[in-house]
Amino acid sequence: MNQIITIGREFGSGGRELGRRLARELGFDYYDKEILTQIAERTSLSEDYVQRVVENQPHQLYPITTGRSFLYVDTQPLQQAGAVYQAQQEIITRMADESSCVIVGRCADFILRERKPFRIFVYADMASRIARCRERAPEGESLTDREYRQQIQRVDKARAKYYEFYTDRKWGDKLNYELCINTTNQDIPSIVPHLAKLFQ
Amino acid sequence: MNQIITIGREFGSGGRELGRRLARELGFDYYDKEILTQIAERTSLSEDYVQRVVENQPHQLYPITTGRSFLYVDTQPLQQAGAVYQAQQEIITRMADESSCVIVGRCADFILRERKPFRIFVYADMASRIARCRERAPEGESLTDREYRQQIQRVDKARAKYYEFYTDRKWGDKLNYELCINTTNQDIPSIVPHLAKLFQ
Repeated sequence: MNQIITIGREFGSGGRELGRRLARELGFDYYDKEILTQIAERTSLSEDYVQRVVENQPHQLYPITTGRSFLYVDTQPLQQAGAVYQAQQEIITRMADESSCVIVGRCADFILRERKPFRIFVYADMASRIARCRERAPEGESLTDREYRQQIQRVDKARAKYYEFYTDRKWGDKLNYELCINTTNQDIPSIVPHLAKLFQ
Repeated sequence: MNQIITIGREFGSGGRELGRRLARELGFDYYDKEILTQIAERTSLSEDYVQRVVENQPHQLYPITTGRSFLYVDTQPLQQAGAVYQAQQEIITRMADESSCVIVGRCADFILRERKPFRIFVYADMASRIARCRERAPEGESLTDREYRQQIQRVDKARAKYYEFYTDRKWGDKLNYELCINTTNQDIPSIVPHLAKLFQ
């Protein structure tokens, strides 16, 4: 039976790095952005568009009814969001069928719930997330702490809404994870070999 | 430098069992109820009374002022709560000085904050906490699920208030712990050897 580890993570907490290193340490496959690429292939939407769809809050795309009037809203984005989520479900399920793996984000914990994946949530305090974002900023990017904080809050809010829309669960709520790891002041490369022992 | 592991835990989550086993696995000292015994010795209060004090919400003991009137409240319990907390601080600090150890509850994570203890929080869903309480009930005790739920909620509420009163932090908030462990459907004896590897 394949071992499946899913990772939810706050923006800037190093969850992706932790997942990638954990997969390498365990010799597991690692999926993150690959999922978007495969969704794009399957749905014939561009990868950029898929990225925008999965970062959107799908309920904002619903038609809006107010009293008896009905405000017409183009339902195409909603249909595409549905198609993207369905492709995502199929791709993630196939990945879990094929091999032991670490999957970051994409509601994988919920999609694979019947296989009882080991669900990890990675988080950190705001100061260390800002420091991490700054450290990894593309050359030439120079944001203030306030701007980084806003970016972090914006991304996390979108992740929470997306997760809650599709899973009806609260993103980041301890009860939805087997293990929650605080990376504040922690060196991820040195945590990972220890963490890997939980699965060996 | 002694390694210090502190454990906060929801009632019925198996946090004490996990702490005790982890200490044994690591060859560390283990402190839990011993702290109450030592507080009783040091303050000349009975262990039962100390137990009641630490389960109380200290702010309820404060004198109450309403507008300009002053409602007289006996301040002796408040002074005793203060004495108990001070004894607790001294005892926990000495324990951490003496050896590597696992300390359950008693705001040890906060009291020892300058030594950067590794802070664990243990939790579980309500159904598994009720099952655990039932399994470990003293012979002859037969409560309904509803009664267990009420007991669990009462104890957790008292723990949260006590912790928040003395630390000004939110009990159970992920950010106050390095690791949060969900024991729902987990077998604690089999988790512990893996967990111990994080400290070896």
